[in-house]
Parts: sequence; structure tokens; C-alpha cells
Amino acid sequence: MPGPCVRRVLSAHAVVLKTWRSSGAPGLRITRGRCSAPGGEDLDPGRTLLQLCLDRHYISPGQTDAELFRRGRSCSYGPLGLELRSNLLEQWWHSVTRSRARVFGIDTLSCSEDRGTDGGGQLRMVDSENLKQILEKQELSKEQLIQEVRVFLQRSPSVRANLLQGALEQIVPSLKLVNRKLPFGLAEAGLCFQPSDGCGCPAEITQTSLVWFCSPRTSSHWLDHWTRQRLKWWRKFALSPSDFSSSDVPEEELAEAESRSVKIVYNFPWGQEPLETLCSRGASELLQTNKEARSKLQGQDGRKTVPHVVSVTGNMDRGLMAFLSNSLQQLKTEDSKQRLRQRKVLKLHPVLVPVKVALDIGRGATMEMRRVCEGLLQEFMEAKISVWPGYLDTMQISMEQLNAKYDEMGVLFTVVISENTLESGLLQVRSRDTTIKETMHISEIKNFVSRYISAADKT
Amino acid sequence: MPGPCVRRVLSAHAVVLKTWRSSGAPGLRITRGRCSAPGGEDLDPGRTLLQLCLDRHYISPGQTDAELFRRGRSCSYGPLGLELRSNLLEQWWHSVTRSRARVFGIDTLSCSEDRGTDGGGQLRMVDSENLKQILEKQELSKEQLIQEVRVFLQRSPSVRANLLQGALEQIVPSLKLVNRKLPFGLAEAGLCFQPSDGCGCPAEITQTSLVWFCSPRTSSHWLDHWTRQRLKWWRKFALSPSDFSSSDVPEEELAEAESRSVKIVYNFPWGQEPLETLCSRGASELLQTNKEARSKLQGQDGRKTVPHVVSVTGNMDRGLMAFLSNSLQQLKTEDSKQRLRQRKVLKLHPVLVPVKVALDIGRGATMEMRRVCEGLLQEFMEAKISVWPGYLDTMQISMEQLNAKYDEMGVLFTVVISENTLESGLLQVRSRDTTIKETMHISEIKNFVSRYISAADKT
Repeated sequence: MPGPCVRRVLSAHAVVLKTWRSSGAPGLRITRGRCSAPGGEDLDPGRTLLQLCLDRHYISPGQTDAELFRRGRSCSYGPLGLELRSNLLEQWWHSVTRSRARVFGIDTLSCSEDRGTDGGGQLRMVDSENLKQILEKQELSKEQLIQEVRVFLQRSPSVRANLLQGALEQIVPSLKLVNRKLPFGLAEAGLCFQPSDGCGCPAEITQTSLVWFCSPRTSSHWLDHWTRQRLKWWRKFALSPSDFSSSDVPEEELAEAESRSVKIVYNFPWGQEPLETLCSRGASELLQTNKEARSKLQGQDGRKTVPHVVSVTGNMDRGLMAFLSNSLQQLKTEDSKQRLRQRKVLKLHPVLVPVKVALDIGRGATMEMRRVCEGLLQEFMEAKISVWPGYLDTMQISMEQLNAKYDEMGVLFTVVISENTLESGLLQVRSRDTTIKETMHISEIKNFVSRYISAADKT
Repeated sequence: MPGPCVRRVLSAHAVVLKTWRSSGAPGLRITRGRCSAPGGEDLDPGRTLLQLCLDRHYISPGQTDAELFRRGRSCSYGPLGLELRSNLLEQWWHSVTRSRARVFGIDTLSCSEDRGTDGGGQLRMVDSENLKQILEKQELSKEQLIQEVRVFLQRSPSVRANLLQGALEQIVPSLKLVNRKLPFGLAEAGLCFQPSDGCGCPAEITQTSLVWFCSPRTSSHWLDHWTRQRLKWWRKFALSPSDFSSSDVPEEELAEAESRSVKIVYNFPWGQEPLETLCSRGASELLQTNKEARSKLQGQDGRKTVPHVVSVTGNMDRGLMAFLSNSLQQLKTEDSKQRLRQRKVLKLHPVLVPVKVALDIGRGATMEMRRVCEGLLQEFMEAKISVWPGYLDTMQISMEQLNAKYDEMGVLFTVVISENTLESGLLQVRSRDTTIKETMHISEIKNFVSRYISAADKT
């Protein structure tokens, strides 16, 4: 049972949680979209966000990574970006595979010798030593050389551009797994590669895919079902849910196999971009992929039928960018010396935020205080609550600067151990969302944070 | 508080847990290594294991995947293989990043334009359309053509063979993150690609990597530290820990940059194979990778120093294979009709096993019983306990066949809902490890399983 202190704070925070999407600390002016910096300089919110992601270890420094990231591609992620993406993928996985008993996870290979026919196959994994050997063959004429290189290229495995094909190839064992009973789904998350639009590296994309097999007469119903589910999922974690929306893809933009398609888009400061695409795609690709096994493709939903396919394909790198963009609040505030400051807060959803708790020491750090921190750190880690070991930082900065830094990182709670903690067991907890500081007993902090996150997960 | 029934069963199972590594059900003869099948036929345990992995949805059907898997490479995993790998990676991640405050996770790109120099660079990602355009240039002489293809190849991004290089490239921002204080580590898990030894696809390998930066005088100490830690980790999840061992790599086999190296190997039925390699590698590669930034490479451990590198590189596909191989027990047993049968049990560690609970219905399934199953399924899923919806299976098989199937899948507990459950709330739970069936109240089953897994995690 939580102590009276935790109960008191929990009930206070239940209110906070409801107002997570409201203005944050009272009395401050929030600016979204274009805004003025303290110096009067006009700031591009997209650029502000990227700079913050670089400064606060979401992505690796370097213009290349920032540009990749902005374009919704995988880049070198720093510790916070990696943790955010893990949390996002875990939530996706949970929502897709655990919401229904009949979704199974799979994991297929990135390279394949047979996928040249699926419209992909543009990117190939080439063994450069083997190609060099062909180029060194003195005896070949130019025409023979060209022919050999062509054959070599064709035999080199193609690299997947999406996860759909891999799932379609798994239909026969999967039907066996479910005793042919429709509907069911195959879920996968993994890296996909798309040709670079410039001359650089191919785009790496962390894709999520649900391939849903159902009877032909229900496919339209399932497309609607999954669209509702997915949109609800995106909005669950959004500070401003209306920035996520869905829209039908115009008929003239549909690919050959697609009979209907819906996009879930996010309204970035620089325009709308798609996060996830849902498609009703009939059975043609399934039949094409499993030519030899046609007789084994029969599923059962009342009567025997070759299943139709509904695909749900997401770009989680861009999804990550959308949540970062959605959660950045810029507030004007006065500091203790009454100077006007721009306060940037990354108000990521408590479930997604990469660092739940930062552990710090107040003035006059001692060996004992460090030991208390280490104990707490272990306790948080064992409870799988991600914690930032701020007390290891040897740079002396003011509490105000520390709060500003943690707000930019998105840290949900800052816990400060002081001399008082050694005497009374009391520590100070600051909430990112209210900026309110409260006193709590050390024995209650872990449960408090843990309950706060669970509560946020359920709302 | 757990009810008296749970407490009773828990204490019984505390004993079971201690004897998880013992013989299993009493009175049965266990055969490890080569063994005789009921028909007297001599079975190759390696082949038996592969067949079981195929039959029980650990890997996708098909000779190619089985062969890839046997060789310690990534293959198309079925739902159980995927879940086992996730659990394994989660445990690795937990052990490496959460055991010490100073290990940070990163995620780097698979392709790079600059990595041609690191000894890798043999595999390249090629845009086949661009190469075809070069081949179509009529005006080129043979020599010009060869030259253009060479330049094209050199400019095509190389694909990573390991994760070390990516971590070395992150040293500058990482030193900033830790205020230059040594030691610290960068952890990453991801796909790596190695040239095929035949003519097929390149080998895809799920690699784990910890790159540890420390002062030169402590690097040997840290190599020993991490070797102990890692071997302990492998053995923690093993049914037969002595099959995992470590040995020094002979000096003549060391690569140029390596000053000392240790391998952790597993004793497969077909011979020893390495699972993880630990290397003390000095500072030369770090300096080589960060040529322009030499002045920024200084770390601090008492005095200023360029850090030395200790790398810990694991192959988690082979690790998965090792745990499967280690946990397969073949027992001779008599069935109810006193026929001699071969019982195969996959006694995977409770934390690793992909399916913790199978939910089934006894004879005479009714709508109400199904609803009870669905309620329980939701309850388990919300507690993040993976559950197999056996009650959805429409194939009628005997309880004996069902148990045999679940033992081969490794399912920890089989829960059977009967008509009795509707009246009294009691259900039957069968344990994989003891084969004992117990009666328990439906309100207690989730906590029971949850506590059992936590207890196993702590031993």
C-alpha cells in the first residue's frame, strides 16, 4: 500500500495527468508554430527542434544526421533517440500483436535472391571482390564484359524496400499455424532500404508492418477497423492530437494491386507528411508470390477462400520525429533575476519519454549522498524505469540551468538528494509538466513514478 | 497479498525452481547427446533440434532457413523464434546497459560512404539502375567502362560487417555526454552483413556490441571484468551451464589492433562455436577513425588520456541456437497405453521462453468457457506475460498430444479451463518442468505465473 504522502501526491498528479495536454505551468504564454526568440530573432520551429535533438542526445551531431532525420529517415541516434524509438516500437508491437489474439510476430531476411520481380530489386547487395574479378578478366570483349556484369548484378541479392513481401512469403506456414482460420495477421518491425534521391547512401527506414489476411467480403471492414485503431494509437501519445489525421488516397494515386488506401499524416511545421499507410490490396500479390503453392492458400471464414490482404505500413523514424515535434512547447518565462527567457519543454508522453527520472545531488555533494543515489538508481533500474545519473556529472551548474536542460531532454521527474535526505529520508521531486516541486520520502519515490506512468498509459 | 493457495503453490515451486536444472519429471531417463529413438533408429541431436524448431514455429519452414540457422546466422524466424530473440536481446540490453550507470545505448546506420578503409567494405549497396546506365553508355571504350564501374563501386556505400566502427565514430559526442570521464561504454544491437561463403545471399547476423572506453592502465582489468560478467550471463540462462565456457584466443590468431582476446564458446552437438568475442584493442582504431578530431579524444581518469577500447561482440542468432540446443531434453516415457515414447521438452529458462502460458479448454467447449479464456488472455497480455491462445485451435487432439506439443514449444504452464471452472472458479495448471498438474483459483493464476518468472529471474 502506498503511504499517505504518495496517495496525496498521486491524487494531485491525477489532476496533472488530465491536464498534461493543457498549458503546462500556469501564467506562461505558450507559443506554437512560428515564434519570437528573446532577442527578437524569428526562429523556425523546425530548426529549433532539430537543434534541440542534437544538443540533447536524441540524434548524433552532424548536419547529415539532422537532415536524414528531418526527412523521416533513420539516422545515427543518440542514447535518448534510441530509447524513444524502442519505447515507440514497443508500444506499436503491444498495440498490434497484443490487442488481438490472432496477430503473430515474424522476422524475415533483409536480402533475398528472388525478390527482383516485386517492383523492388533496385538496390542490390554486391560483393565488390567478385565484381572486381570480373572487371579484371583481360580476355573478355566489351560486350562480353557488359553481359557478365549484367548477369552478376541480376544474381546479386536484392535488398528489401518494405516488409510486405516477406510476410506474403510466410503465408503457407502461417495458415498452418492458425489451422487455416481467417482472419489473422503477421506483424514485423525492421529496417528497409530505399534508393537515395541524391547520390549518397540509400535511405534506411525503420518500418513497421501488419499484414492482415481476411476473407474478401470483410477486407473493406478491416481496412476501416485498422484505420480507426491506428489513428487512435497515434493520437493517444500526442500532446496535440488534432495534428494527426487520416485521409483517403485519391483513386488515381493507387498502385495496381491496391483497391483502396488510407494515409495517416502528421502536420509538421514544414507541411504534412505520411506516417502510416493502410491498403486494401486483394489477393493478386499473394497469388503471384506463392505461385507454386496455390492450392495451399485456402483459408477458412465460414467457407473456403483465398485470403485478401490489408497492409498497414508505418515509418517509425518519421513517427518519432512527429512525436518530438508535437511535444515541443516553447514558453516565455522570467528567471529569478527577472530576465525574460525562452523555456523549451519536450512534453513527450510519460510512456514514450526516454528518461523518466533524473537523479541529482543538491549543493555540497558528499560520499553518503552519492551512495544514496546509487541505491536509488539500482532500484529504478530493477523496476525498468529509465533513469539519468545526473549525480555523476561533475560540471557545476545552477538548479535553474539543470531544470532547463532536463526540460529540453523531456525528463519527467527530477529527483534531488540533499543533506536533508540523509537525516530525514526526504527528497525533492520536480515535475516537468507542472514545474512544481514537492517533498517526498525516499521509500515512496519509485512507486510514485511507477504509478504515474501506469496511470498515463491507461488514459 | 497472494491467497493461501498461491502461497502454497509458490513454496512448492520454489523447490521446483531450484531443481529446474535437475532431471525434470522423476523416474524418467534423460538422454543428452546421441540417443536412440523409439524405433531404435539413431537420431542426430542436431537434426532433431532443427526439426523441432521447424515444427514448432521457431524458424520458418524450408531447408535454407534451417541451414542458415544451424550456421549461426539470421534466418526467417517464426513467431516463437522472434519472441525468443526479443527476450534474449532484452536480457542482454538489461544486463549491459542497466548493470552500470555509464553504459549508453546508440543506434548507427547500416550503410556508410566512408567505411571503405576499416577492412570491411567488401559488401556494397548498389543502385542497379545507376549501374545499368553506365553499362548502356555506347560511347565508352572497354577501358573507360571498367574505370567508370570501378569508380561507381567505390562510391557505393559499404555495408557494415560489425558494430564496432559505428561506435568508434560516436566517441566525440559521447565524451561530451560523460564530461570526458572514463570509463564508459556504448551499447548497440543490430543487423550486420558478412559476405556469403557460397554464391548465395550475404550472411545476416544479429550482433550485440558493447564498446568500452577506459584508461590504458585499466584495459586489461576491464577485459577480465567483462569476460566474467558475460560468461555469468550466458550461464544464468543455461540448463547445463558447463556447456558454455571461455578461452583465450592464441596470440598468433590476433588481428593487428588486438592485444588480447577471449572467446565465449558453446559446445554444440557438432562441435564448439564462438558466441561472443572480447578484445582489448588499444587506441589505434579509435585514432584512425577520428583523425581530424584527435584533440577532442582526451578522456579523464585521474589524468588526461586517449581512451583504450575493449570490445564485446556477440552473435545473438547463434546465442539463440545455443540456448535451444542446451535446453532440449529427450526423455523416454510410457504413455497411458504403456507404449514407450520419446518425450521432447524444450526446457528454456522461464525468462527466455517465448510462450509462458498456453490457454486451453477441456472437453465440451462452450461459449462461456471461451469467454473465460478471452478474459484471462487479456489479463495475461496486460501483465506482459506472453500467452498462446490454444483455445482458438479447432483441431481436436488428446490432452496427451497437447502436452507433447506444448513441451516441444517450451510452454512453461498449460492452463486448462473446464466446466468446473465456470462453477467453482478452479482451473488446472500443468508445469512443463515437473509435469505435475495442480488446481488453482482463476483469480490467482496471473500472479502465480508472474511471481514464478520473477523468482526465476532472480536466481
